Formats: sequence, structure tokens, C-alpha cells
Amino acid sequence: RPHLLSRNFNDNGRRRTVVVRAEGGSSGEHINPAIRKSEDKVVDSVLVPELSKPLTPYCRCWRSGTFPLCDGSHVKHNKATGDNVGPLLLKK
Amino acid sequence: RPHLLSRNFNDNGRRRTVVVRAEGGSSGEHINPAIRKSEDKVVDSVLVPELSKPLTPYCRCWRSGTFPLCDGSHVKHNKATGDNVGPLLLKK
Ligand code: FES
Ligand code: FES
Repeated sequence: RPHLLSRNFNDNGRRRTVVVRAEGGSSGEHINPAIRKSEDKVVDSVLVPELSKPLTPYCRCWRSGTFPLCDGSHVKHNKATGDNVGPLLLKK
Repeated sequence: RPHLLSRNFNDNGRRRTVVVRAEGGSSGEHINPAIRKSEDKVVDSVLVPELSKPLTPYCRCWRSGTFPLCDGSHVKHNKATGDNVGPLLLKK
């Protein structure tokens, strides 16, 4: 659903209100902009006995090209927005 | 950094432009609004041999009161925004 914001501003002494659509429509508030949007809820399972490496990073930024694994895309997101998100590291 | 949007609208036939601050300032683009904001990057490690339960859900929505564990807060976020995020399930 589109998200609308109303804002007041001053137009040569007249008070005016404008309603704008939030950036990106409803996706402006979405944590996940693009991954598996046909699913109601994106849940992934890891069978930990099957982990092959000593350390496997899993994505929590919803920007990875290899989701549910982390591919380092959180770095670009953090730089662009000032955010501070990072992966969950699974250690055998 | 605050994020500004400019929008055009029609005021009785006159074209006007208004600039508004995006909702929540820069945090409008943040995936993580509040967790451990003093850290440059929030990374957590799970030692999988120490998992006690057959299934442990880990948060990927950054809204959990028990982060890095999932407490079900993704449901409220999804309902409020139309998003579709969910946890990572670790299975022993
Ligand atoms: S790519 Fe998403 S947390 Fe690393
Ligand atoms: S509370 Fe964040 S994914 Fe469940």
C-alpha cells in the first residue's frame, strides 16, 4: 500500500499543506526491497549439521545477491544510508 | 544525513514545488532503527554446537526485543508496512 505523508509549509505567509507519497511508495519502509516478494513471509532454515565451512555468514540486510547467505552487500547499504547492519555468523 | 524529497503539485492551476524531509530523516532508509547504534556494524556469532533447542529463530527484521533472536516482532513490521521479512531458523 502506498504511504502518504502530509507536510505543512509557509507560502508567503499563507499556511499550506501538501500530501506527498513517501519515497518508493510503500517500499520506502520495506526492509526487504526485492527478495522473493511473491512469498508472504521469507523464512529460511539452516540444518546446522550440514554446514560445510567453519564460518558461514547469513544475510540480515536483505540486499545480498546470494540470499540467505551474505555476499558483503551490507557494506554498500551502510555506506549509502549511514546504517550499521551486518550478518549473522554461524560457526561450527 | 537527512533525506530531502522534492514534489510538484497543482495549486489552482499554478505549479508549485515543495521540498519535504523524508519520514524519519535518514533513518527512513535504515533497516535497523535502534539496535546497538553505537556499533559501526552489528555482527553476531552463533556457535552452533552450543544451540540448546532443536529450532532457534534468529531475527532478520531488526525489530526484535531479544535481538539477535527473533521474538515475533517481524509480524507487526510486515503488517504495518506490507513487507514480507522473517527469521532465519537454525535447526540442530
Ligand atoms: S549482504 Fe546482507 S548482511 Fe551481508
Ligand atoms: S523479530 Fe525480527 S525476524 Fe522475527
